[in-house]
Amino acid sequence: MSLVVVGSMAFDAIETPFGKSDKIIGGAGTYIAWCASNYTPVKQISVVGGDFPQAELDALTARNVDLEGVQIKKDGKTFFWSGRYHMDMNTRDTLETQLNVLGDFEPVVPESYQDAEFLMLGNLAPSVQRSVIEQLKTRPKLIVMDTMNFWMEIAMDDLKQTISMVDLLMVNDSEARELTGEYSLVKAAAAILKMGPKYLIIKKGEHGALLFHGSKVFCAPALPLEEVFDPTGAGDTFAGGFIGHLAKTKNISFENMKTAIIVGSAMASFCVEKFGTERLREITKADIDERLAEFVQLANFNIELG
Amino acid sequence: MSLVVVGSMAFDAIETPFGKSDKIIGGAGTYIAWCASNYTPVKQISVVGGDFPQAELDALTARNVDLEGVQIKKDGKTFFWSGRYHMDMNTRDTLETQLNVLGDFEPVVPESYQDAEFLMLGNLAPSVQRSVIEQLKTRPKLIVMDTMNFWMEIAMDDLKQTISMVDLLMVNDSEARELTGEYSLVKAAAAILKMGPKYLIIKKGEHGALLFHGSKVFCAPALPLEEVFDPTGAGDTFAGGFIGHLAKTKNISFENMKTAIIVGSAMASFCVEKFGTERLREITKADIDERLAEFVQLANFNIELG
Repeated sequence: MSLVVVGSMAFDAIETPFGKSDKIIGGAGTYIAWCASNYTPVKQISVVGGDFPQAELDALTARNVDLEGVQIKKDGKTFFWSGRYHMDMNTRDTLETQLNVLGDFEPVVPESYQDAEFLMLGNLAPSVQRSVIEQLKTRPKLIVMDTMNFWMEIAMDDLKQTISMVDLLMVNDSEARELTGEYSLVKAAAAILKMGPKYLIIKKGEHGALLFHGSKVFCAPALPLEEVFDPTGAGDTFAGGFIGHLAKTKNISFENMKTAIIVGSAMASFCVEKFGTERLREITKADIDERLAEFVQLANFNIELG
Repeated sequence: MSLVVVGSMAFDAIETPFGKSDKIIGGAGTYIAWCASNYTPVKQISVVGGDFPQAELDALTARNVDLEGVQIKKDGKTFFWSGRYHMDMNTRDTLETQLNVLGDFEPVVPESYQDAEFLMLGNLAPSVQRSVIEQLKTRPKLIVMDTMNFWMEIAMDDLKQTISMVDLLMVNDSEARELTGEYSLVKAAAAILKMGPKYLIIKKGEHGALLFHGSKVFCAPALPLEEVFDPTGAGDTFAGGFIGHLAKTKNISFENMKTAIIVGSAMASFCVEKFGTERLREITKADIDERLAEFVQLANFNIELG
């Protein structure tokens, strides 16, 4: 059942058409851990500076997130990102990036993490993601990798090398196109499945997500929302729900991955309701079950064939 | 079981990144009839010129499409449209429109159509659509209306009047936004459901379709396609499959509308494979069943709640 998560832990400052956040807690690793810990214990790998609040670390520990792999650089500052979303909420401008302790992050996999059956590589430099794979003495049952267009622009070769080592890649639609030069997502998927991964998830934001494996395809809806308050972390939360469900059920069949995508989509639909991780901290098991039932209604249909 | 379909019958000339068609048979009414006649007899209302091939009319008659309501203006010319699709296949430029006999079309509902239980108003001037509703002495069980942005730009008041008289409106996502001034599709849907219709379908092309009714939502996937060869008529074909299934089953429950949307989506996925109506003329019941089975695999998932 052991799940290892690698990803940034950060401060974010976010502007949306609905408002402006303070400097709040963010980072791919943070969102993944908050989300996946609803399903399974998490062994976290990350780095923070001395300015990262102890209370935040304690809150994760209380949720069964093991922080042995989180380096605390007392004299350094935590990664900081600030951005502004456009009116359509699908595009954003980065206003400021301070890499700080993330700039020379060298992950160290603790001995107690060596039993990892599931590895979730949150968005980070592909060389850092690769380093974690290489430190594991036994290959996990499933390695899932998230990434973003940024690495395609500055480190494409490095990125492709890491992609070739994972079982499942998650990207959004524009990233799938950028990675392959194919406009058709079906052609882009075929090209990515030749790069190494056996599974591919293409996230399409408000249009849901697609799962590809061989000639099989699954199309998951997104919950139609009146408003997306803050999209930050939605993709990471999706990843956390996806890998959390798989790690909990220890079943990596295509059918169970379908369910895992619905779990990830449901969790992401909470994430966007408030700034940062706020909503993920509030929701209960009952809230999650209610949301999952909405997805069943949303996507379910009966048809008589023949 | 009687279904009345109103819509243009036309000549089209189409350019896509994949090629250029001759002057071929098109028109919303044509696509709807070719598609819906897989499910139920159709009573067609339209107008053509003396240049419209008799063989085309005979082909529809052979499919149980009653043409008593199709006016043939011997001295007139059939409506002609030519357009060019952009690389993304979601946008197109109209190169030429010759309204011809459609310009002063006054539909006449034959006495034998008065038993209509289902009325499908294909995209046409809203005043023409309204005239058909007004000529029916008994209100059909379900009136479905398709329209397009063109009428929002030149006849918004007229359009809203017709919308207020129908049970179900179908538009695409950009049209839903234009009609309401709301960017969020959930807000746009709420606004449209206040205009009169009890049901709303928002078509999202490659991203599928949404059905709204009160607080209920259903999200149908589109089949991920390697290539869309020619999108012309996909929306009309969707409408034909949707209304054809409802008319065949005589069941207008929300659950059956879900199934009808899947049927429409499956039929539309054939339409885009070749120019014009070509593919719709080829497919067999077995082809359709196979495609529907693909949709089940595409959208189906199991989840344990609680």
